[in-house]
Amino acid sequence: MTLTDSTRAAATPPVLATLLERLPEGRVVTDPDVMAGLSADQAVWAPVGRPAAVARARETAEVQTVVRACLEHGVPVVARGAGTGLSGGANALDGCVVLALDAMDEVLEVDPLERLAVVQPGVVNDDLRGHVAEHGLWYPPDPASSPWSTIGGNVSTNAGGLCCVKYGVTRDYVIGLEVVTGTGEVVRLGRRTAKGVAGYDLLGLMVGAEGTLGIVTEVTVRLRPLPPQGVTVAGYFDDSVSAGEAVRAATAAGLRPAAFELVDRHCLRAVDAWKNMGLADEADVLLLARFDDGGAAAEAHAEELLRCFRGAGSGWAERSETAEEAEMLFSARRLAFPALERLGPVLTEDVCVPIAAVPEMLGRIDAIAARHDITIANIAHVGDGNLHPLLVADPDDAGSQERAQAAFEEIISDALALGGTVTGEHGVGLLKRHGLDQELSPAVLAMHRAVKAALDPAGVLNPGKVFEVASPTI
Amino acid sequence: MTLTDSTRAAATPPVLATLLERLPEGRVVTDPDVMAGLSADQAVWAPVGRPAAVARARETAEVQTVVRACLEHGVPVVARGAGTGLSGGANALDGCVVLALDAMDEVLEVDPLERLAVVQPGVVNDDLRGHVAEHGLWYPPDPASSPWSTIGGNVSTNAGGLCCVKYGVTRDYVIGLEVVTGTGEVVRLGRRTAKGVAGYDLLGLMVGAEGTLGIVTEVTVRLRPLPPQGVTVAGYFDDSVSAGEAVRAATAAGLRPAAFELVDRHCLRAVDAWKNMGLADEADVLLLARFDDGGAAAEAHAEELLRCFRGAGSGWAERSETAEEAEMLFSARRLAFPALERLGPVLTEDVCVPIAAVPEMLGRIDAIAARHDITIANIAHVGDGNLHPLLVADPDDAGSQERAQAAFEEIISDALALGGTVTGEHGVGLLKRHGLDQELSPAVLAMHRAVKAALDPAGVLNPGKVFEVASPTI
Repeated sequence: MTLTDSTRAAATPPVLATLLERLPEGRVVTDPDVMAGLSADQAVWAPVGRPAAVARARETAEVQTVVRACLEHGVPVVARGAGTGLSGGANALDGCVVLALDAMDEVLEVDPLERLAVVQPGVVNDDLRGHVAEHGLWYPPDPASSPWSTIGGNVSTNAGGLCCVKYGVTRDYVIGLEVVTGTGEVVRLGRRTAKGVAGYDLLGLMVGAEGTLGIVTEVTVRLRPLPPQGVTVAGYFDDSVSAGEAVRAATAAGLRPAAFELVDRHCLRAVDAWKNMGLADEADVLLLARFDDGGAAAEAHAEELLRCFRGAGSGWAERSETAEEAEMLFSARRLAFPALERLGPVLTEDVCVPIAAVPEMLGRIDAIAARHDITIANIAHVGDGNLHPLLVADPDDAGSQERAQAAFEEIISDALALGGTVTGEHGVGLLKRHGLDQELSPAVLAMHRAVKAALDPAGVLNPGKVFEVASPTI
Repeated sequence: MTLTDSTRAAATPPVLATLLERLPEGRVVTDPDVMAGLSADQAVWAPVGRPAAVARARETAEVQTVVRACLEHGVPVVARGAGTGLSGGANALDGCVVLALDAMDEVLEVDPLERLAVVQPGVVNDDLRGHVAEHGLWYPPDPASSPWSTIGGNVSTNAGGLCCVKYGVTRDYVIGLEVVTGTGEVVRLGRRTAKGVAGYDLLGLMVGAEGTLGIVTEVTVRLRPLPPQGVTVAGYFDDSVSAGEAVRAATAAGLRPAAFELVDRHCLRAVDAWKNMGLADEADVLLLARFDDGGAAAEAHAEELLRCFRGAGSGWAERSETAEEAEMLFSARRLAFPALERLGPVLTEDVCVPIAAVPEMLGRIDAIAARHDITIANIAHVGDGNLHPLLVADPDDAGSQERAQAAFEEIISDALALGGTVTGEHGVGLLKRHGLDQELSPAVLAMHRAVKAALDPAGVLNPGKVFEVASPTI
């Protein structure tokens, strides 16, 4: 060995050397820009560490190789899909291995009779939906990130979306998982049958655990038949509180649309500026609902909802006349977040409150924005009380950041005071750890730590996400 | 202290003395017959131990008192509801404390707007259903034991039922729990909001854990609006395999009834003998389905199902003409198990297989019955592949018991070979521990043990149910 070789070897983190030795050619990412791009999700202001190595696995055995190497070296492993997370759950830790799963992107099986699909974790949500639609089937969970986010990431955050107000969240559709465990074993959890209670619900425990209890390498999801196109209703409101009252009134009337969304003028303007849709001139707040019951039921529900909208003070409320118009309105909703992000860093809230508390919470958010002199845009899965206040601050203005941070904390406290939760669907990651401490009792947090220690005894699986833990030696 | 007093004190187990001292008057059961009645569920041939004490709690604090006393004395605690379980999960262990929760039977709250109810664990399933029906609401999970079984027991076994083929199981309706933990603390898990991902799904972990990870003292369930009465279809078949083919054909045609049941002649005869319904003369196997889509959709589905029935060889298949007739058919289904039980001990199977494998599995069950020369009656939630072969043996005939036991093991092996699970809804308890060992890999069983040790470090919570563990010192 020459002196140069020796120096180079010394500069190579041992875990990187192990991965280079054991993984096939091309799996270890060495380009610094690519490494940096794979080191963070979309959570603004969450800390990002510097990984020792980044690996892009193509099969389960390679995931196992990475986890085992991390166990040998006592190095954390941070799994990631498309990096569309909003809580910092996939952010790198110093000295960690980032394990990208986006190249494991095959739909392995669709079984129309059992109505299930088996997919690798890197399959993009919309790709799965498109794939099963060929069989007349539907995978309902539809986070607004569905054109980009992966099923593995959706599972790890228990992603929600627009239609979960009627159809439930990711957890309700995952029936089987293959997982690489904290001890480096490959296990199968769950089943392929319609029902099953053989043992603890370890599958459910993995869903939403943000990669802290295992790394998902295969997912079996249940499917539904494609729903009818449905009827879309839109209403404009002068303020978010009256829009919230319309939602409460609709819910009290027993209406349960398949999607029930709120988009405010800040968001509409941002979408206009990007896509030139001309939406923002009409109203402060847009409510958007779709009924997919089919036939007369959807028509009747739409009429009833229009009555609720008008009763709550909507200045304009109508059914959309064409499928194209309906699609345009929903695409505006889906584009709201990326459109706003184009204008600068956005701190995304994700509180969820009881439906009855929606008007009160929306009013409090307005008051918080005024009190802290910051812009808070609002999009919301309002039909299930899941609000996404988007705090817009100038990243170069420390004062504005501080005010946004204070507003963020107040929104969390107010949501809890109204019987809500700090995160409806984005997960805890790094941004909501403090919120979790507020929401859960010390005894429940102790249960979390006990479960974490039981399933990840070496503490290598995304440590410090969801809640603080003692770091493994690195 | 006289000699007599001293002898009596020595004969009193220390944990019993502690409970007598700390619980209010009347909570500790001392009548030997009542104690015996509270020491077992309905699992035939599962071993039953002799408890040191039986307590009947009336509030959460008393449950906590019992768990803490058990922790102090290193004594197992076995919680029970109505004792309708079928796997031995609630059977007493020698020297344990049996903790009866049937007296905690209040519906604490019904919130029609949020569509949820909060109940104590001892509320009987049908009582909850009746209670929320007054608000036009519905709690779907409907085990055939619903007139007797409690919500706490339903939660602890993740009970299914007739309508879960369309509406899901208990797990899908539980959103919040109060639990006394293995360290004797009272914690709240879950939420009251429509969505929430704050931390691990510890709530899901408690559901179906059969009292081995915590004792449920309050349950928050989500509700749905009452569905329409619906349309009932019945069909008679000459054998279970052709009935199974009808189910597969209906599923392949995309039909998803709200209930889809199979009842065979053994069961119909037993119901006839008990209730004089005159059902058993017509057919070997009855298939029974209900569509509750409402209006034209239900009518169309019923017609399509009749075509599937006739195509699979049904000799008679019709829609029921009246609601009374439909109700009579479904009540026959619900009464099948208790009717058979009247005739002697019944060993109940609970395998669940993929829908495509239903005809094959039903055929194998017939062959197993013939091979072992025992009677196997069949009821099944056949629409989701959950079969309940009922093994009828003479308890006084050791040979017949042995043959039944051998048949039981073969049914388990065959279900696993066909991609199924050993228990669809009854739980593992004592009867299916061997089956669980067959179904789960050693690594997954190790994860179970790790989670158990994490949440019940003293090993006092129903130890040895679901899987074997080292007993606490007693």
